Amino acid sequence: MQMPHVVNKYRSEIDSELRSLLQPYRLPLYDMMRYHLGWIDEQGMASADSSGKALRPTLCLMAAEALGQDYQKALPVAASVELIHNFSLIHDDIQDDDAERRHRRTVWKIWGKPQAINAGSAMRVLANVALARAKERGLSLEKCEAGQMILDEATLKLIEGQYLDIQYEHRFDISIDDYLTMIRGKTAALISCSLELGALTGTDDPGTLKMFNRLGESLGIAFQIRDDILGIWGDVKNTGKPKGSDIKRKKKTLPIVHALNNGPVAVRDAIIGIFQKDAIGEKDLELVFDILNEADSYRLAQKTVRDYCENSVRLVEALGIKVQYKNNFEQIAKFLSYRDH
Amino acid sequence: MQMPHVVNKYRSEIDSELRSLLQPYRLPLYDMMRYHLGWIDEQGMASADSSGKALRPTLCLMAAEALGQDYQKALPVAASVELIHNFSLIHDDIQDDDAERRHRRTVWKIWGKPQAINAGSAMRVLANVALARAKERGLSLEKCEAGQMILDEATLKLIEGQYLDIQYEHRFDISIDDYLTMIRGKTAALISCSLELGALTGTDDPGTLKMFNRLGESLGIAFQIRDDILGIWGDVKNTGKPKGSDIKRKKKTLPIVHALNNGPVAVRDAIIGIFQKDAIGEKDLELVFDILNEADSYRLAQKTVRDYCENSVRLVEALGIKVQYKNNFEQIAKFLSYRDH
Repeated sequence: MQMPHVVNKYRSEIDSELRSLLQPYRLPLYDMMRYHLGWIDEQGMASADSSGKALRPTLCLMAAEALGQDYQKALPVAASVELIHNFSLIHDDIQDDDAERRHRRTVWKIWGKPQAINAGSAMRVLANVALARAKERGLSLEKCEAGQMILDEATLKLIEGQYLDIQYEHRFDISIDDYLTMIRGKTAALISCSLELGALTGTDDPGTLKMFNRLGESLGIAFQIRDDILGIWGDVKNTGKPKGSDIKRKKKTLPIVHALNNGPVAVRDAIIGIFQKDAIGEKDLELVFDILNEADSYRLAQKTVRDYCENSVRLVEALGIKVQYKNNFEQIAKFLSYRDH
Repeated sequence: MQMPHVVNKYRSEIDSELRSLLQPYRLPLYDMMRYHLGWIDEQGMASADSSGKALRPTLCLMAAEALGQDYQKALPVAASVELIHNFSLIHDDIQDDDAERRHRRTVWKIWGKPQAINAGSAMRVLANVALARAKERGLSLEKCEAGQMILDEATLKLIEGQYLDIQYEHRFDISIDDYLTMIRGKTAALISCSLELGALTGTDDPGTLKMFNRLGESLGIAFQIRDDILGIWGDVKNTGKPKGSDIKRKKKTLPIVHALNNGPVAVRDAIIGIFQKDAIGEKDLELVFDILNEADSYRLAQKTVRDYCENSVRLVEALGIKVQYKNNFEQIAKFLSYRDH
């Protein structure tokens, strides 16, 4: 499934906003960020590598525009959520010991974990600096301050989700509710925050902000479960991750949680036996795939994605925004739910 | 040398401010912070372990009070700098692979590095949450926003200093200026920020803010060089660090930088030879001690501490504050420069 056109609409302006923000920072510390964002290669030469889908800043700008705000005024806010997202990716790669992201070596793989921790933490601070630039574009002090609090709360939820994600690796008593709590933090919190911050630039109405926040949660859950599916059954050519990578990392993704909760005792025991090994080999991987296929896990997980996608479309309808903006949000909801990358 | 009395004056109120801030956060993620702060032990039971000198929040409250502000209004700001300091310690222990701090196991040693990264990052966010509470104590929105920017800038400088500290471990061409750049970031930036934020609660005058900032830089440099001395010649009973620990970690402390820059070629080559080994043994350590003693490095480093201490006292005089506050700052300057713990 192709990326909706609206994702390309803002891409170069988001990129410019981020580049102008980072421009004054000359220490090699900041080159680690430039590398992570795909602007330079390992030797420091300019590159045009992918810096990801820029989903969060796009949603932020879409929300601003849907509420009648000039989206360019929301660019500092959009840059800020993109930096929070990338701070979490840099640290996530360290925590998960992932050597590759988007077909390139991860920051820690090149510069070592101690310096990659610094790069991530400094990027977290730059998110605040990005947000503070919204004032220069005419956002009121009150809104800047409210925005900072929304951003901080979402970042805490994101880290809480990350905490649970790692904690769950060693647990087998994860219910569907536990799983949803984890992804609400790890993934949905920042997507909600992106929409809410964008909306904040265009409205003062708490009810409207709440509706955008709820839409973000629904989109975020669909996005993460589709991500779980791609992390198990996805094609490395599209996803940049080897097939079954999330199984090898012992992640409690929805298909695994489904099988642990709803499968027969023998299935549960087989999965636990494999996940308790120090390293999961190719044969174990095949066995897990057999179990998941037998339990119809792909279909069940994708059904949940579809439910959240449909819920998102209903929430978009309820926003009462112009038809062209509504269509864009619906396209995004469908893309997040049915994408193969 | 004893801790000045003023350090105890605010201690219980700083502690209460931090405890009330953390109170609503119940996930085990936040227990890692409570452990690090000395409030609970590894089993989660209440403990009365040391949580450090609380130097930074103390300086913050001293600055507020010296400018005629009720120091209790500055408690949220003081809590915020203490959280930034502790966020950096949690990550620092991961980066330096330090298994002990203040005679207890470090956070990563108990919960693993991935979760310790989360604990540090979440504490960084709580520093923002702490600062935002200043509004409820009557600090204006303008000052809260200015405070957030001062805090962010100091945090970036702190991380830049941390970056250089790690980078210098593999370099031998470090000049005294390079060293000072590193500690201005790593240590002095947050001490300057503590004084400046405290002052901000009591004045609008940019000149006064600047003077408190400069005092913080001078105190911070004296503090760090004294720390370097204690990290080499200090007594484990007082410092909690084994003798020579900074040498084993190949840190470019001032005594080492002095010897590399001012010693004869043979001294330089001997140090480089030892620092290029994978691990520094007891015999190597003795040799480095001999070299440093021959180069009179202790005396030279302590002379620099004394210079910054005297400079700090001059800067305190220039503040034009009441004599009792002036005396307290002078006592702090002397304590930081001549302490043995």
